[in-house]
Amino acid sequence: MERILICETPKKIGDKVRLAGWVNAIRDHGKITFLDLRDRSGIVQCVGKDLEKVSSESVVEIIGSIAERPEKLINQNLKTGKVEVQIEELKIISKSAELPFDIGTEDLNLELPTLLDFRSLTLRHPKIKAIFKVQEVVIDSFRRALQAKDFFEFQAPSIISSAPEGGAEIFEVDYFGHKTYLAQSPQLYKSLLVSIFERVFSVNKVFRAEPSVTTRHLTEVVSLDAEFGFIEDYLEVKEMAEYTIKFVLDQVAEKCAKELEMWGATIPKVSKSIPIIKLREAQEIIYKRTGRDCRKEKDLAPEDEREICKWSLEEKGSDLVFVSHYPTKARPFYTYPDPEDPEFNQGFDLIGRGTEWMTGGRRIHDYQTLMEHVKEWGITPKNIELYLQAYKYGMPPLGGFAFGAERITMHILGLKNVREASLFPRDMERVDFRFSQTEEDSSK
Amino acid sequence: MERILICETPKKIGDKVRLAGWVNAIRDHGKITFLDLRDRSGIVQCVGKDLEKVSSESVVEIIGSIAERPEKLINQNLKTGKVEVQIEELKIISKSAELPFDIGTEDLNLELPTLLDFRSLTLRHPKIKAIFKVQEVVIDSFRRALQAKDFFEFQAPSIISSAPEGGAEIFEVDYFGHKTYLAQSPQLYKSLLVSIFERVFSVNKVFRAEPSVTTRHLTEVVSLDAEFGFIEDYLEVKEMAEYTIKFVLDQVAEKCAKELEMWGATIPKVSKSIPIIKLREAQEIIYKRTGRDCRKEKDLAPEDEREICKWSLEEKGSDLVFVSHYPTKARPFYTYPDPEDPEFNQGFDLIGRGTEWMTGGRRIHDYQTLMEHVKEWGITPKNIELYLQAYKYGMPPLGGFAFGAERITMHILGLKNVREASLFPRDMERVDFRFSQTEEDSSK
Repeated sequence: MERILICETPKKIGDKVRLAGWVNAIRDHGKITFLDLRDRSGIVQCVGKDLEKVSSESVVEIIGSIAERPEKLINQNLKTGKVEVQIEELKIISKSAELPFDIGTEDLNLELPTLLDFRSLTLRHPKIKAIFKVQEVVIDSFRRALQAKDFFEFQAPSIISSAPEGGAEIFEVDYFGHKTYLAQSPQLYKSLLVSIFERVFSVNKVFRAEPSVTTRHLTEVVSLDAEFGFIEDYLEVKEMAEYTIKFVLDQVAEKCAKELEMWGATIPKVSKSIPIIKLREAQEIIYKRTGRDCRKEKDLAPEDEREICKWSLEEKGSDLVFVSHYPTKARPFYTYPDPEDPEFNQGFDLIGRGTEWMTGGRRIHDYQTLMEHVKEWGITPKNIELYLQAYKYGMPPLGGFAFGAERITMHILGLKNVREASLFPRDMERVDFRFSQTEEDSSK
Repeated sequence: MERILICETPKKIGDKVRLAGWVNAIRDHGKITFLDLRDRSGIVQCVGKDLEKVSSESVVEIIGSIAERPEKLINQNLKTGKVEVQIEELKIISKSAELPFDIGTEDLNLELPTLLDFRSLTLRHPKIKAIFKVQEVVIDSFRRALQAKDFFEFQAPSIISSAPEGGAEIFEVDYFGHKTYLAQSPQLYKSLLVSIFERVFSVNKVFRAEPSVTTRHLTEVVSLDAEFGFIEDYLEVKEMAEYTIKFVLDQVAEKCAKELEMWGATIPKVSKSIPIIKLREAQEIIYKRTGRDCRKEKDLAPEDEREICKWSLEEKGSDLVFVSHYPTKARPFYTYPDPEDPEFNQGFDLIGRGTEWMTGGRRIHDYQTLMEHVKEWGITPKNIELYLQAYKYGMPPLGGFAFGAERITMHILGLKNVREASLFPRDMERVDFRFSQTEEDSSK
């Protein structure tokens, strides 16, 4: 008999079927045992008499017949749905050791270190798994949004030969005795590839050696990057970024209703056209609303980001708002200065629910201007030679944007810590396990 | 007027249009100039009188009207198609410097070092670009093949805390003063994730510090990995691997006809069911056919791989053949020994056109057996604790397979060197540029 998935059971009432999965929970009532079986498609309650003793999380195969559950029981336990399985045969395929904690509960109330120390176990919990279902949809819909616009997907390099932009927070790799580094961003590669494919995107790892442990930082991040050429102005970049983020949010709303509900999360409210305002305008608005004078700052502080989001929701009906025109000197060398006011540039951030969601902007495409910036920003041309080559031999006007898959997932679900949105989060203290744990152990 | 793409021009005969792209080639006949314009969709010939001087590879915008070309001219120059553009306005958007070599030719006959030193320029050549069109289809169809079978796409970690399997050929990363490494394979993560998602795949970078420069090795590779649980036997893994590779090849055949033609390449011939033979059987066949006795070797030598492919094509009508049952001790600790003959295991390689295309097999799922192997193989359990955790708490029978995107692309197109199939190949001597070049320069 071929195995069927739990999600297929409601259509098989009265049938004898074969199921396989994990023992999500077990309730032993003497002769009668209730066993919640979990597979990749869901959870179903199974009932049997005189069953062999089986531990939670063991892998089992069940042959049984499917019956409808009484209406009133369904409401008591939504999780296991409208049917139950009357067990005829139970076979233990793989026995689980005793669990360090119960994972068959509705919520998994564990501290973050425990959640991560037992990652192979805690990821099995439906609510934790839901985070990665959302993230998969985020990444997949980012990809499909851009494929629909004729973007080429490229594989960005991870090992780079030099640290072009600043570079204190960069990991060093011993490369056959040479110093190399892990890429912090595919920015220079995606830009140069515009001179080849016109429109490119990538889903790739970037690495940031931030020497601080915050709730928002990971050292290894899945970066979603896009860049395209032949633009008229920076607003065309804003439009593409807006189209992409809206597509992603729509897909999450459509495909992850259950997951959003589990986390009590709602998709941000987005107006027909997401508002875009200049930094100085945003600061003026904040000053008028709060009296707090940040009008000479070169960036928005966290409280400013929260205030501008409040304004955007109240005045424009949008949880998301673009802020553009940061001071030219405060952004990377390739950002396009506004021709009408070159002290400010045509880069932008997308702010949502009080925090940064995405960053992007128009880039310089003219080789002479770029070389002047390279000099002014103190960058060694030799270190970015491949990038400069693209501009030397003809580059169209271009722009692009990027956002982190983990952060977007965190923002959508309202997670408290970005580590929860990474399957195997790496930070200053942890690569799978905390260094203090592993080092103590190896010194024994 | 909105820009249209070159691929749209045949449908716009008689219309006035706006095009934009790069000057692929220019032929100056005094008053009249022929200019081949290239954009992401193709190349079209444009003709104009008294044009401003423009260099090859400059980015230009052309307004002009589309005319049919005389039949006899089409045959002379297939590349630029059935129409030409009569230039009314030519605007130079971005001027190219003088090129180090001509890239407007049908073939780009450059030595590999030049091809790579000028990567931002050489990638613009249609035949080079074609390699990455094929690779994009390979990766995208791998993804879609497995999504159709309900596989979850995960993001594999790149930084790992220890080097579990051997480990001489592994890159070390200075991680806030701790020793960490770059992952050589997502094997342990994809296996452990089977206990969570049942079916998983990933498209991710792996890193191999092979201290040799061959035509087949890169240090940074795009690995296509799949793993799934609840299998009956290793042949189910072979079936899934076969389905996937066939799907990929079919998609390349369908979507890359032009690219295959450019390279004079054909899709390998595949029989309805790809043959699978045991290593010892393969060696017996080779002995009978050639008299060469490799019947006690633990692997196939390159000449054996070529011979077994010849046999497969002659006797089974298939360019591809699976070879299984290598000696257990010659494979990693997690490979599943054949219960009927535990000296040999249920791992397999897919050999095609005389070389390895893919590797896979069934894995041990039983925790006790796995721990025995861990011990026998001399692995420190602490180093793979997260992986072992998954097995300790219930793992179904599982297996999987993996192949490199660059190698498959090389095999399909018949490229001579795998570096040609990587946008920015990294090897022992080169990260974008040869170390000897960059070090000479920095010592100046």
